[in-house]
Amino acid sequence: MAQKTAQVRETAETLAKKQREISVSEFFAKNRHLLGFDNPKKALLTAVKEAVDNSLDACEEAGILPEVEIIIGNTGVDRFLVSVKDNGPGIVKAQIPNIFGKLLYGSKFHSLRMARGQQGIGISAAGMYGLLTTGKSMKIISRTSPRRPAHYYEVQIDTRKNRPEIIKDAEMEVDFAQGTLVEIELEARYQRGRQSVDGYLAQTAIANPHVTIRYINPDGEVIEYERAADVMPDRPKLIKPHPYGVELGVLIKMLKESKNRTLSAFLTGEFSRVTPRVAAEICERAELSEKSNSTRIAREEADKLYAAINATKIMSPPSDCVIPIGEELVKKGLAQVFEAEFYEACTRPPAVYRGNPFRIECGIAYGGRVDGEELATVLRFANRVPLLYQQSACAIHKAAVTTNWRSYGLQQSKGALPHGPLTIMVHVASVWVPFTSESKEAIAHYPEILKEIRLALQECGRKLGRHLRRQRRDAEANTKRIYIERYIPHISESLAEILALKQKETDALTDLLKDILRNSRKF
Amino acid sequence: MAQKTAQVRETAETLAKKQREISVSEFFAKNRHLLGFDNPKKALLTAVKEAVDNSLDACEEAGILPEVEIIIGNTGVDRFLVSVKDNGPGIVKAQIPNIFGKLLYGSKFHSLRMARGQQGIGISAAGMYGLLTTGKSMKIISRTSPRRPAHYYEVQIDTRKNRPEIIKDAEMEVDFAQGTLVEIELEARYQRGRQSVDGYLAQTAIANPHVTIRYINPDGEVIEYERAADVMPDRPKLIKPHPYGVELGVLIKMLKESKNRTLSAFLTGEFSRVTPRVAAEICERAELSEKSNSTRIAREEADKLYAAINATKIMSPPSDCVIPIGEELVKKGLAQVFEAEFYEACTRPPAVYRGNPFRIECGIAYGGRVDGEELATVLRFANRVPLLYQQSACAIHKAAVTTNWRSYGLQQSKGALPHGPLTIMVHVASVWVPFTSESKEAIAHYPEILKEIRLALQECGRKLGRHLRRQRRDAEANTKRIYIERYIPHISESLAEILALKQKETDALTDLLKDILRNSRKF
Repeated sequence: MAQKTAQVRETAETLAKKQREISVSEFFAKNRHLLGFDNPKKALLTAVKEAVDNSLDACEEAGILPEVEIIIGNTGVDRFLVSVKDNGPGIVKAQIPNIFGKLLYGSKFHSLRMARGQQGIGISAAGMYGLLTTGKSMKIISRTSPRRPAHYYEVQIDTRKNRPEIIKDAEMEVDFAQGTLVEIELEARYQRGRQSVDGYLAQTAIANPHVTIRYINPDGEVIEYERAADVMPDRPKLIKPHPYGVELGVLIKMLKESKNRTLSAFLTGEFSRVTPRVAAEICERAELSEKSNSTRIAREEADKLYAAINATKIMSPPSDCVIPIGEELVKKGLAQVFEAEFYEACTRPPAVYRGNPFRIECGIAYGGRVDGEELATVLRFANRVPLLYQQSACAIHKAAVTTNWRSYGLQQSKGALPHGPLTIMVHVASVWVPFTSESKEAIAHYPEILKEIRLALQECGRKLGRHLRRQRRDAEANTKRIYIERYIPHISESLAEILALKQKETDALTDLLKDILRNSRKF
Repeated sequence: MAQKTAQVRETAETLAKKQREISVSEFFAKNRHLLGFDNPKKALLTAVKEAVDNSLDACEEAGILPEVEIIIGNTGVDRFLVSVKDNGPGIVKAQIPNIFGKLLYGSKFHSLRMARGQQGIGISAAGMYGLLTTGKSMKIISRTSPRRPAHYYEVQIDTRKNRPEIIKDAEMEVDFAQGTLVEIELEARYQRGRQSVDGYLAQTAIANPHVTIRYINPDGEVIEYERAADVMPDRPKLIKPHPYGVELGVLIKMLKESKNRTLSAFLTGEFSRVTPRVAAEICERAELSEKSNSTRIAREEADKLYAAINATKIMSPPSDCVIPIGEELVKKGLAQVFEAEFYEACTRPPAVYRGNPFRIECGIAYGGRVDGEELATVLRFANRVPLLYQQSACAIHKAAVTTNWRSYGLQQSKGALPHGPLTIMVHVASVWVPFTSESKEAIAHYPEILKEIRLALQECGRKLGRHLRRQRRDAEANTKRIYIERYIPHISESLAEILALKQKETDALTDLLKDILRNSRKF
């Protein structure tokens, strides 16, 4: 290969001039497929999802039973206006521009608490996508109390600086006492089916029986999901990190920045499940004084402290920080959407991955639909949010295909989901759900999470197996009864002819034969 | 479900107090699996990969044939020290802290030019992972010229602020005239095999025949790849965005920020392939004056301009911005690593996705190894960088399994790779490779990219098919010849006995029979 073109040779100096900071908005604008905006169909779903997830989180945090209204209208070729309104606590005026016009800004990232949102990216990214594709601002109306006026904002994200640009800012008369309304116009495509806005809302209703959803789709149809439960789920508790999940470098940083003076106070104050007794045990093992100043722990001492933490037996994190939907409500939710003959659910006890508590629940619905070669359907949820894309990359899918469903009476090919009219629902609840990408579509393959999902599936599977065996036995017994009823009289009559029996004797013989056959197998 | 715990009700005001900015470093520290640091084995690979990719980019930009030395040493249980040294142009002192201690900082993000790095995240993320897991700083030595001293830096990233913290900063005597050395200590695991550092370097040598690599692995073994080509590949040209790939919102932003006064100057100046004639055509179609001030184009006019751009025929982007490896070097590279009986390669002409030029090349090596049921091996490359993880999520894998290999004489199950001793190599070169995550492990499924990969595979496949048919024909002919040689004399002798022929007649008969059989099929 000859050097056909003159090579422009860079030097350290010319290269240095090109170095520049990249704003996080520029980064995600260019890599928008990482956020779920890779195609027009998914873009519509992602925008609705981010807004609805925020609404539900806000309502629950304020102890309000959520009522959410979603309207999607067609505004041109491949263009839609998405509007999402909730009855939540509203947003304080000063926070509106940052929440909607800045990526990586939010209230949930820095705390360990089970919530739908966690990154502070979603809704601003949806607004940014709308702006990039249509040039239109995001519109927000929010009211925090009936005693105060509502605020109206038009916001655009300045991608170069990752900063909101306020286009309009006014007070406004509205017909609701409290809540937030968000409007985004974007390039998108509307399609029905499982991976659509319609599918997402239907599944949201299953996992959130305390929520009322009203949805008007682009065809003008009104779809409503009335709440099935009038009680709010328990509010998940905020927790401190568990010592087992902390790495050496993080420990060093925490020590340096701690406001607790002594090492003992540091350990009990910054971590969950470290009692003064456990702290004393850790210090002794690390050969450090409980009273040593935590900000002055040297690197080698931190090494020892780290080793001591991991060598000391510490109780698992508390479980009231992850709130399951509950077995009854899971079954109720499935029954609302799938007409089946058998429902089962299982909520596992809390478990821990990398120091983060999590809890798995699983529900199954079997039968009711006729299908020959169809595979089971898997519904995936993380902190009550339906996951609709990247199924095969998800830990839930992996656990489902590596479970042996044949032992529960179903057909299954290697590496595939089982055959049959089966719907499997799995919910992963955690203070920090490890997603495989910013678009939060699939859960990473942590071994502890995979194991718990498998255990939950097995528990439901065993019960399904019992049901199917009973069903098969009943079917066999039924066939046999039919045979007996149908053929015994003929046999008796033939015998009667051969043996020249009287009618009375024939009847007695028939009864005798029926008895013998019926008792040949208990049913 | 009863309300067992008291619900802490948040209000708009209490929620507002929790809102905080999240630094991009905090975000990626918590989500480090997005960057390829999800497990200790992969962490080692990712750290080496980021450093080597940077070294190769820097050398090529400066027109220097790259020589890279990688040393990995075991420093404790699950701890390794990675050191990567190159003969590149070095880094200007003032830039070192930002390049290594700040995420989203770099020279490549804002330009459209084919390069290994594109995001400005990789090497700082590797240093951050080292810091988090071992508490150790990243060390950098860089020298820009033999006339100047080398700089030595110890840098830590301040994750809370996404800012470098300089721990040490000094001049240093070194034994090299120019280049950069990076050292990172991290928690990791060393394993051999295809998804290891060893595998990555072997594959790097295939796709970069102009590079010399020296590698000392943790077992102290020295592995060397001498360059196979003494000529630098052409330097990829920088290009401007193509008008077809620009969205309405982006167009509006570009208009607003343009330094070109007239609309005509804006179109020809900011885009590739827009000549004054094309610009005039676009303006006419949009019913806008070529002389109108580009910064004052109103929203509705921008709408029209956008439609006009997409309705006007504009030449494809120039092709010298994506430089392929070349068919000869692809075959040479494969031959260096795989002993096979048949090599073929194909470099496709440039194509475009979303306005970004790209170019596909494919190489195959067939035979040489004995294996029964083994599937073909796929080697994936993006801008000459081997991709080792997430194969099944990658466009290259998808194209390979959806190609019909049976028509080229190979066995293949539905949805699977073909069977046999086949190695498939695919290289995607582009000014912007669309990866499915920040860890750059798989290429997103853009239809244009899938199509081009399939076309390249088909071209190689057809040639493989011809080779296999010829091989089979040769084998059949050979079997026949053996039969002829072995049995004809016996038949002749038997006939001779029956017919009582003389030896001379028998020989003539043998020759006649051989001739008849040989000519029964041409070979």
